[in-house]
This record gives sequence, structure tokens and C-alpha cells, in this order.
Amino acid sequence: MYKVNSNFQNVSGSYLFSAVAHRVSQFCEANPGVDILRLGIGDVTRPVCQAAVNELVRASAEQGIAESFVGYGPEQGHHFLIDLIVEHDYRARGIDVSPDEVFVSDGAKSDLGNIGDILSTDNIVAITDPVYPVYLDTNIMAGRRIVTLPCRASGDFVPVPPDDVIPDIIYLCYPNNPTGMSLTREQLAVWVDYARSHGSLILFDSAYEAYIQRAGVPHSIYELEGARECAIEFRSYSKTAGFTGLRLGYTVVPRDLVTSDGIRLNDMWRRRQSTKFNGASYVVQRAAAALYTPEGRQQVKSNIGYYMTNARLLIQGLADASLTVYGGIDSPYVWVKAPAGMDSWSFFDILLEKCHIVATPGVGFGECGEGFMRFTSFNSRANTIEAARRIRLLNRL
Amino acid sequence: MYKVNSNFQNVSGSYLFSAVAHRVSQFCEANPGVDILRLGIGDVTRPVCQAAVNELVRASAEQGIAESFVGYGPEQGHHFLIDLIVEHDYRARGIDVSPDEVFVSDGAKSDLGNIGDILSTDNIVAITDPVYPVYLDTNIMAGRRIVTLPCRASGDFVPVPPDDVIPDIIYLCYPNNPTGMSLTREQLAVWVDYARSHGSLILFDSAYEAYIQRAGVPHSIYELEGARECAIEFRSYSKTAGFTGLRLGYTVVPRDLVTSDGIRLNDMWRRRQSTKFNGASYVVQRAAAALYTPEGRQQVKSNIGYYMTNARLLIQGLADASLTVYGGIDSPYVWVKAPAGMDSWSFFDILLEKCHIVATPGVGFGECGEGFMRFTSFNSRANTIEAARRIRLLNRL
Repeated sequence: MYKVNSNFQNVSGSYLFSAVAHRVSQFCEANPGVDILRLGIGDVTRPVCQAAVNELVRASAEQGIAESFVGYGPEQGHHFLIDLIVEHDYRARGIDVSPDEVFVSDGAKSDLGNIGDILSTDNIVAITDPVYPVYLDTNIMAGRRIVTLPCRASGDFVPVPPDDVIPDIIYLCYPNNPTGMSLTREQLAVWVDYARSHGSLILFDSAYEAYIQRAGVPHSIYELEGARECAIEFRSYSKTAGFTGLRLGYTVVPRDLVTSDGIRLNDMWRRRQSTKFNGASYVVQRAAAALYTPEGRQQVKSNIGYYMTNARLLIQGLADASLTVYGGIDSPYVWVKAPAGMDSWSFFDILLEKCHIVATPGVGFGECGEGFMRFTSFNSRANTIEAARRIRLLNRL
Repeated sequence: MYKVNSNFQNVSGSYLFSAVAHRVSQFCEANPGVDILRLGIGDVTRPVCQAAVNELVRASAEQGIAESFVGYGPEQGHHFLIDLIVEHDYRARGIDVSPDEVFVSDGAKSDLGNIGDILSTDNIVAITDPVYPVYLDTNIMAGRRIVTLPCRASGDFVPVPPDDVIPDIIYLCYPNNPTGMSLTREQLAVWVDYARSHGSLILFDSAYEAYIQRAGVPHSIYELEGARECAIEFRSYSKTAGFTGLRLGYTVVPRDLVTSDGIRLNDMWRRRQSTKFNGASYVVQRAAAALYTPEGRQQVKSNIGYYMTNARLLIQGLADASLTVYGGIDSPYVWVKAPAGMDSWSFFDILLEKCHIVATPGVGFGECGEGFMRFTSFNSRANTIEAARRIRLLNRL
């Protein structure tokens, strides 16, 4: 009889958000009519940038006309978009990336999951704790050995390169989800140097790059010397331009990534994508191209500015409530320490019951997230202001 | 040092279409101004159905307005589409499929490639010869043992269940690419019975279902008794509604697929998709929903009719040139035997040099394709008529 992939038995259920939903619905049943503010959501609320919408509508209408219809595109992505990515996201920052190193896809989540196809299951994988669960679950599914890199408040949530077990593959996400913390150039250089000296591969999730506000925080891992020889970078349009529903992202696999046997990871990823993927939606690629026009860039900047103002309002409210706050400077995520000794779920209950606010318990992202709560800045301004007001009232309780 | 997936070294380069392109460009250089007709293409030429375009444009415009913006959707697909699939593609044919068994994706190619994630690499896989290369390449990448099921003209290109090696997983694609042949209910029942008695899993690629013209040819493998216990079905909107560039398909994983350990493949695929995929583009799902309206259904039917008329015109031209023709009745593909003793590439050269027609050498789809050529009906009517005229002239050479 056919056999299934037995590693799936080791993947734990994704109970976090369903557990959150369950507690919220119980509370609402017991307290009908209460106005709940949801600051746990990871989805954006601002619509797709108008420049992108206009282009999406135009390209869509053209699909109904034989002369302008576009069918199968290159699996790697259309050149009109790849050239813009290379020019604006890399060369404008002095980073050398060539068009054949860019692979457009239906989103960073797909690529972060699928990249494992080109890597041996024998590799030891290092994952931070707390962490975006996709890195963990996809590697459990593949049966790889996993080591965790604890990130604690005492170390500003910066992971420390391990010296006991040397990981072959290292997932890094900066600006980070869930902690909202970023790495300086020097902090990231530590990891690039470590990877180069140990022959490790860094999978760098850069989905929140557009949120970086501070100078000294690298926008791409390729700003670091030697990163082209040790790192793959993942980017997303989801949180920058409202593409969470449209679906688009891209991955950079430098041609300098070569194994000791002379195998290029760029060739392998191209083979993987051309075999198991048929390109991202043409109309969505057209929409993304419009984000690189002057209007599109201004609209993306305005979107990010909107959410960052929300983050500031949240941080102020939390600080006024005497809570200790991390992140939220180069990131839409605000990471909050629960009041003395309280665990994540107890703090969750207090926020729900006293403030009618839903946030995400940090322990859901890993053991080191225990005692923390993740707030997102993706709600509307009005809701965020009201949330900050309610949080301030915690002081009086 | 990190290790790559060494199985990739065993995947052969995809030389077929680049070899075709190379010969064509050489010919064109030597014969400037020649009007080449391309009947090798697998992409459609008719634009997206107007009903779908209208809905695509409407949904796209709504993405720019906060009140109608839709972000992350369910990884499995939006219910407005899943419910239409269940109703029109299955229940209308008397087939019992429930909404939680349908998984919408960015295309059948992705699903056919990714389904391997939930299956052990220890399985023995059976693949027809000739074959759509994705089944072969994805299993080589996974390191699975592969047995081929030779399909020959003497057996009407129908594969015969093997009795020496019992495959755990069996890929079947009907109507078939590249042979264009379909299976009757009785012929498919042989495979369902075989799979049930041997505990094999059938991966049924039904991308060309909409092309079926003859009664007695099943539109879904679930028309066969017991198929819900042994088969996963893959569907596509690409060739029916011009969605090759928009990207959309779906996969049905029945809840009756349960291993001897009680593991449901439906649960595994849901976990795979929610971990490594973030849903298909919302606007494209809206466009697909419009295909189930009376106008949409009429337009799809008209599209299929257009291509099937092309297929008939091609078949007539080929028959008039005394060539033996297979397929093209329930399929957009016409599979042609080269003149006595001639191999695929020699026939390719004759078609190119004498008729200025490009088709695809059958040997590129597997050894059993040697001596055959694949023509597609996806070109325009005018080009297809002209191609048939030129093919007829082969008689006089």
C-alpha cells in the first residue's frame, strides 16, 4: 500500500489562532454587544495602492482581447517586473543583483515553504524562538533536525550564533515577526560571517523590509559583504502594498551560492520552479510593476507611514500603562512584556476582559515568547487610537 | 556545510522545447521571411472569457476601496468558488464531493508537483510513457523509484496495469497529454479496481476534462465506484477559460482516502497547503466564479468548441496526407504517426522544411513517443486552416 510522509505526524496542530478565536467567541457570547478591537490580526486593512489597482484593472480588461491576451509567462516571472525589482529594490541601494537571480512567485510563504525542495533533509536547521511558524513546520514535515536559537529580552531578542551544534541552514527574519525587532548592520554581519566560516546557508526573510525607518538597519542581507555566497533572500508585496489577497512575492538566489561540488542553488531553484510552478498571475505582476512608478512608491510610503503611526500610538498607550515594549520602530509588530510574572494567556485574558482588545499570546510563537504579547499596527487609525486609550486605563485597574 | 537535494542531479535538462526553438531559429535564419505556423504550443490563443474578465475587472477595482478590500483568504480557497465547483463540476454529474474536499490553488501544475510532500519517498511510482514531464521530474527530485507504463499504438495508447512490480502511486492523465486519447468508463474502472485491490493511490490529472465530447468517457474519476477511496483528482481552468496567465486550478482530496493507520490524506493536504501556501489570488478566484454563470458556461463551451473545430480541421488535413492520427476527439491534442519508419525528429524537420510548421516531437515525452508528433489545436482558426492546407501538400512531395 502507498505510504504517506510520516513526518507530518510530528507537526503540531496550529492551535494558536483557533484558541484565540475560541476564547474571543466565548467572551462575546457571555458579553453580547461588546465592541472588540482586534490587534492580533496579521492582515492589512488599507486597500491595495491605487497605482497598482489602476494597472490591475487595465491588465485585467486586456485579458479579454485576443491581441493583448497574455497566457503562460516565464515561471521565473515577467521581465518587466524583474527589471524593476533589480533596479529599485537592489541597484538603487548599491546592491548587485542580476535579473536571473530574481524569482517572482505567488508569495514569500510559498517560497519559504518550497525552498526546502532543493535542500537535503540531512541538514541541521536553526530557527529562532519565538518564530514565524512556517520555518518550523515545513522543516518538521521534511524530517530535518531542528535547533532553536533562543531570543530573550535580556539580549534584545537578538539570536546568538551557536557554538555547540553548527547549523547547516539558518532562518533569519528581520525586521522580525513576532518581536518587531530589527538587526543593525553589525548584528547581521555576525551571522553572515558565521555562515561563511561554517558553510551554513542563511534563509533571510525580508518580508517587512519596507518598514525599516532607522539608518544602520540593512534593507537587504546583500548589503553585507559575502552574503551573496551564503544567503537567499525572500521578499513580499503583502504588507507594503496591500497584496495579501492578490498574492505576490519574490526570492533572490545569487549565482554565487555554489556547493563544494560546484552545484549552483540558482540552477536548482530555477529547475524547481519551472517543474512545480507555472509563474505568478500576470495581472498581479502588472499591478506590482506599478508600485515602482513615482505614484506607486509614494502610495506605498504613505501606507507604511499610516501603519507606523499606528505603531507609535500603540507604543505610547502601552508605555503609559507602564508596560515594557519592544519592536514597532522598523516593523508593524509591537512586542509587549506582560505585567510582572504574568504569562501570555493570562495577559490575553486581562486585555480581552478589561480592554476588549484581542492580541496574540507570544507563547504561541515559541517557548521564549512566554510572558509576551504581539500587537499589530494593521488596524484602522480610529481603532488603534481607541485601543491605545483603553490600554492606558489598565493603569487604573 | 549545508547539503543540497542530490536527487536534482538525476533530473535531465528540459531540452525538448529549447531544442525545438533552436532548430526553428536556425531554419528562420537560413530562410528569412518564411511564415512559420506554430502547432507545438501548449498555450491557448483565445482570450479570457468575457464573463470572467468582467468579474476580474470588478473585483480588481474593489481592491482599491477599504470597504470592499479583501486580504488573506482561506488557504483552501474562497467558499464562493468552492461551492460552485462542488455544485457544477460534481453534484450536477451526480458525484458526491463535499466543499471541504476541494482545494483551490494557483494551478494544477503546482498541485501535481506539491502533492508529493504528503507522500513517502519510499513509494514506487508508475508513470505512463509518453507522459507530461512534471510527473516524472517531480518524482526524480524526490528520489522515488519510477516504473513506466508503456502506451503504444497497438494498445490504443491505453496503459496496462503492471503485474510484476506493483506501484504504490499511479499517475493517470485523461484526456491525455500528449496523445490526446481518452479512457472509457470501463477502461478507467480497470485502474480503479487495480488501485483498490493493491492499495495504490491514483493521482488523476483531469486538466482537459472540459474537452470531453463522447458519452461513455468519464468527466471525473469519482464517477467510478470506489474511486473516492483511492484517487486524488486535479483540475485546471487554464485550457478551458484562458486562465494560463491568470493561474487557477483545484484539487479534490476525498475524505475517504485513509491509510491503514487511520491517517486522512485530506487532513495532510490541508496542513500542507495551510503551511506552504497562502491561497490563490482573490481576484482570480472571483473571475473563475463567473465561469459558472449561464454566460460564463456558454463562453467556455464556445472556447472549447473553437479549439475542437481546429482539431477536426487538423485531423482532416493529416488524414488527407495519409497520416495516421490519434486523439483530438476528447482533447485539444492530436497525436500523429510519422510516415513509415521515420523518427520524431526527422518528421519534425520535414514539417518545418516542407510545410513551415512547428509541432512537438513525440519522443520528447518519452521513448514510446518515438515516431510520433504532437499537434495542438490552440492556434487561431486561420492559422489552423492554413496549416491543414500545407499538411495536405505533403502527399505530393
